[in-house]
Amino acid sequence: MQFDAHFRERLDQLFRWRRDVRSFRTDALPEELLDELLRVADLAPSVGLSQPWRYVRVSDPRRRANIRASFELENARALAGYEGDRAGLYARLKLAGIERAPLQLAVCVDRGAAKGYGLGRRTMPETLAYSVVCSISMVWLAARARGVGLGWVSILDPSEVVRALELPSDWALVAWLCLGYPEEEHLDPELERFGWEERRASILFER
Amino acid sequence: MQFDAHFRERLDQLFRWRRDVRSFRTDALPEELLDELLRVADLAPSVGLSQPWRYVRVSDPRRRANIRASFELENARALAGYEGDRAGLYARLKLAGIERAPLQLAVCVDRGAAKGYGLGRRTMPETLAYSVVCSISMVWLAARARGVGLGWVSILDPSEVVRALELPSDWALVAWLCLGYPEEEHLDPELERFGWEERRASILFER
Repeated sequence: MQFDAHFRERLDQLFRWRRDVRSFRTDALPEELLDELLRVADLAPSVGLSQPWRYVRVSDPRRRANIRASFELENARALAGYEGDRAGLYARLKLAGIERAPLQLAVCVDRGAAKGYGLGRRTMPETLAYSVVCSISMVWLAARARGVGLGWVSILDPSEVVRALELPSDWALVAWLCLGYPEEEHLDPELERFGWEERRASILFER
Repeated sequence: MQFDAHFRERLDQLFRWRRDVRSFRTDALPEELLDELLRVADLAPSVGLSQPWRYVRVSDPRRRANIRASFELENARALAGYEGDRAGLYARLKLAGIERAPLQLAVCVDRGAAKGYGLGRRTMPETLAYSVVCSISMVWLAARARGVGLGWVSILDPSEVVRALELPSDWALVAWLCLGYPEEEHLDPELERFGWEERRASILFER
């Protein structure tokens, strides 16, 4: 299977236009989208072929309200940790689309996953969670290629999310994902546009 | 920026043909490849725009020999943990291309990364390492789109790798990556082909 220069150029544009989206339109996503994204998740690499990702669609308004409250609390705590101009800047950032995104997913790692027979994770058990992150990365690109924005919310107490959703005790939250059509499209990250941080070119280290 | 159905189909093929490669040809990769892949890594999402990935090219034959020895040791220990048919099966698997891959990278997370001012990682500090995994996911796809195979080796003692490479003490190994032209191309994962584990379709959970 060969991929040509034209495809590589489009793939590069996909990487460039993939954004962490926080401002969503409220119109519903196509019914088949979530199933398509799950099929993409299943193509991700996983340690020992363990497929330890657990995708949970959260639709219940009371559960969503619990998560929103956890975000508000943790966001206020985070703000309290900044001072002066940095605090002012933080307060003006919109850090989650949690109140409007039509599709919201708790993505967990199943730490008790028997699949894979433990292969590859004896010395680095964290590779189980890393596999889940690989699946999210694929889902993110597949969503963007369909014009759908995704935002990853980490300003949450992960144990509180597992508790609020009554998930199995050996599942741990890896990401809270908000999905929907974005209100705006940008080539630059929002944190750069609002002056929080800028992108820099990484350097290569040699040994 | 719109992506059309033709591109989505090719992207799906890229997901399907991305493999964890363990058998490499020894011919060198194009000189510009690594720089291109680093530019792709820099397009990955990172918590607070922290860009905490540190890509280290390991070329020194003595250092490579140290890493290979760590792999051999940990692989033998892993084998000792299996019994009967499973042990026989494990022993027959080729789990790393570490002895032949022309390009080998230690990819680390810089736990002391000041960039991003801590945004988004107060309650979930593991998102720093997750950002590194996102960058590896992008690099993996970009490499495959160029006909280059990548294999992620996790059967290593991560602290031993940091020590053997004399890396800063607040860096932690996320992945050891082997890159090169693959000897064979397959649509199915090697662990499935050799009967270790099979891919299954994930189910969606609802709350």
